[in-house]
Amino acid sequence: MKILVVNCGSSSLKYQIFKVEEGTFNLLAKGSATRIGIEGSLIEHKPSGKEECTIEKPLKNHKEAMLAIEPLLTDKTYGVLKDISEINGIGHRVVHGGEIFKSSVFIDDKVINDIDDLSKFAPLHNPANLTGIQTCRQLMDAPNVAVFDTAVHQTMPEKAFMYGLPLEYYKNKGIRKYGFHGTSHDYVSAEAAKLIGKPFEQCRIITCHLGNGSSITAFKDGKVQDTSMGLTPLQGVVMGTRCGDVDPAAVLSVMQSDGIGPKKMDEILNKKSGLLGLAGSSDLRDVIDMAEQGNQDAENAVEILVYSIQKYIGSYLATLGGADGVVFTAGIGENNPIIRDKVLSCFEYAGIKVDKNKNETGEKIFSTEDSKVKALLIPTNEELMIAMDTYKLIN
Amino acid sequence: MKILVVNCGSSSLKYQIFKVEEGTFNLLAKGSATRIGIEGSLIEHKPSGKEECTIEKPLKNHKEAMLAIEPLLTDKTYGVLKDISEINGIGHRVVHGGEIFKSSVFIDDKVINDIDDLSKFAPLHNPANLTGIQTCRQLMDAPNVAVFDTAVHQTMPEKAFMYGLPLEYYKNKGIRKYGFHGTSHDYVSAEAAKLIGKPFEQCRIITCHLGNGSSITAFKDGKVQDTSMGLTPLQGVVMGTRCGDVDPAAVLSVMQSDGIGPKKMDEILNKKSGLLGLAGSSDLRDVIDMAEQGNQDAENAVEILVYSIQKYIGSYLATLGGADGVVFTAGIGENNPIIRDKVLSCFEYAGIKVDKNKNETGEKIFSTEDSKVKALLIPTNEELMIAMDTYKLIN
Ligand SMILES: Nc1ncnc2c1ncn2[C@@H]1O[C@H](COP(=O)(O)OP(=O)(O)O)[C@@H](O)[C@H]1O
Ligand SMILES: Nc1ncnc2c1ncn2[C@@H]1O[C@H](COP(=O)(O)OP(=O)(O)O)[C@@H](O)[C@H]1O
Repeated sequence: MKILVVNCGSSSLKYQIFKVEEGTFNLLAKGSATRIGIEGSLIEHKPSGKEECTIEKPLKNHKEAMLAIEPLLTDKTYGVLKDISEINGIGHRVVHGGEIFKSSVFIDDKVINDIDDLSKFAPLHNPANLTGIQTCRQLMDAPNVAVFDTAVHQTMPEKAFMYGLPLEYYKNKGIRKYGFHGTSHDYVSAEAAKLIGKPFEQCRIITCHLGNGSSITAFKDGKVQDTSMGLTPLQGVVMGTRCGDVDPAAVLSVMQSDGIGPKKMDEILNKKSGLLGLAGSSDLRDVIDMAEQGNQDAENAVEILVYSIQKYIGSYLATLGGADGVVFTAGIGENNPIIRDKVLSCFEYAGIKVDKNKNETGEKIFSTEDSKVKALLIPTNEELMIAMDTYKLIN
Repeated sequence: MKILVVNCGSSSLKYQIFKVEEGTFNLLAKGSATRIGIEGSLIEHKPSGKEECTIEKPLKNHKEAMLAIEPLLTDKTYGVLKDISEINGIGHRVVHGGEIFKSSVFIDDKVINDIDDLSKFAPLHNPANLTGIQTCRQLMDAPNVAVFDTAVHQTMPEKAFMYGLPLEYYKNKGIRKYGFHGTSHDYVSAEAAKLIGKPFEQCRIITCHLGNGSSITAFKDGKVQDTSMGLTPLQGVVMGTRCGDVDPAAVLSVMQSDGIGPKKMDEILNKKSGLLGLAGSSDLRDVIDMAEQGNQDAENAVEILVYSIQKYIGSYLATLGGADGVVFTAGIGENNPIIRDKVLSCFEYAGIKVDKNKNETGEKIFSTEDSKVKALLIPTNEELMIAMDTYKLIN
């Protein structure tokens, strides 16, 4: 059984192919097409255990990208399939599933319509995801499965997902907290339970997915209790280019003083804020470098980021009434021991103690032996989760 | 020495007169003029130890209100002064002091200009406060002092007061977290330190001011470390009519779908949201009554409120690295033991244990003897704080 995983962004298409044998998922190849529809389109294809290849070639849209990737998958030198028909199922990442999709589903016209409707909450993401879906439906015969970023969060209780807004905004418009990065939180929380050594359903776990986009989730009884992102991926901790939590009146104040409409404001909050807005780069590595060279704004930005993560962990300790483990994952969480250490430095009162050595060397459990709460480093694997969900549905 | 305290809202003027003898502040009288500028204006005057009086009379503006109150203060039956000139100083509550005012000040033309400038951040409050100031300057000779809701929060570190917005919003527009209810937090935190039995400067205290407007503040080393309200009093926990924290993109989404401008949106978020928006009444007593009669929306609203308070206490435990005390004050905090108990129910992991009996009977320290963190009930007294600050400046 072979599963293709497709993750379409506005100008990118990332893919992975897994071969499933006796329940084990082996990665055959992964790659991406980037800068789709803009100058400098690029395909990078990485077959496992084989030579990589890179192709520069104009790609007008996602269909052209898929058409350019397909021959690579079956190529004599770089390929991993004899024929594209070997693919038994295609799993698609879909960002917003609203309240409709509480788990992964086979994609049919109805599902496509629903995903399209939900574009109102994810205007950048859902349409891109749909492009990938449409392209695969046209080019391949295998069944398509949608795996939603929001699905795992659908177990949140009402007190966590409701905003203090007029009730009709929820009832008539669906405005509530949905949460994102669901596949990542789902994956690392389940892995965490194994490391903690208790059934997942009996664990209280806080998962910190810290990448370009960041979100923090609280799990209890095997279910999401709360998560930091909201109706959209804008809310929560400070991110690469997103502001995270702000006084909504501050946003309205800027709109009034600068005469900016909601669309433009949304762009500023999503694309020009966060680390980029505070320090001039959305990449935390750059910001840390600048800080080390004495740039005060960069130093402050790192402090603001760390502090915003601490506040969420703190509030979710309250939500869960304490925790068994705190997990770090994604680009920042997996690669930067200093940030992990700083973030956890204030939690001794809650029984969290970091083993500096283990943290430095990247051990999976990097808390001290006597730490009541385990500090965990677990690389995320959203594509694997999508493949597994797709496999489950097909079987 | 006699001090008049004036607190002007958009359509109200509240006042208190204190007599200061050997450092003790005795309340001579308090009262209010309400529905100023609208039909049904009313003056209620309560002299200490004397009969109260109520006057219904049209009051076009705050000056007319003050002119109607003045004779009451010197009235033979209801008065507490021989002559208005006995007043040695007037303390005014001013909501927004921005970064300019880090403590209370004598009011001169420059101060008035600055308060006026800051109306951009508090369009409902600062102009009303100024009306009270102007009226008193015209009618009385005593020096006027401005006491700011924001002042005590000016010690917050940058990591706490900065939003993840483009840096120029802070540098050029002053957009940051300021915090409010400063006099209340200041007062109850100092009282809390006495009950905890340690110098204020060595205490870590979380103060929950829960009234129509609610805010939560974290104190360490005698200084505010963080507070839940933001640029304006809209941010933070769910309140009577204010939404508290929401995804800013949710606000922009409503604006787009409903074609609403920033001013109208601000009004919805400030006046039609919170408990009112969720359950139909801004008064928690009503909401609790409805919940008890089986109204599901009301029951949810109470849960949402409690949960939003828990999250802030949790995040400030992280900010402070644990706490010595958690204080409840203002209308909700002082009067409802069930809410206090619910809020604190999840904090056993942090060493907070409520003594149900002491909580029920309204004892000042209502945690158990072995509770690591003290749970405290301390009635707030913002007017007394304003009087004390005014007295300090005059002497
Ligand atoms: N060693 C590191 N130190 C700090 N940040 C890092 C490090 N390695 C990667 N990052 C950050 O991780 C982020 C990208 O995370 P990733 O999970 O790949 O993002 P995405 O959300 O796009 O999936 C970037 O901001 C990058 O700066
Ligand atoms: N026993 C009570 N139970 C619940 N709420 C109460 C109780 N008593 C007063 N309140 C609430 O306190 C709030 C008013 O608080 P207060 O501090 O007077 O407000 P303000 O912020 O206007 O100063 C109202 O929402 C009222 O419902």
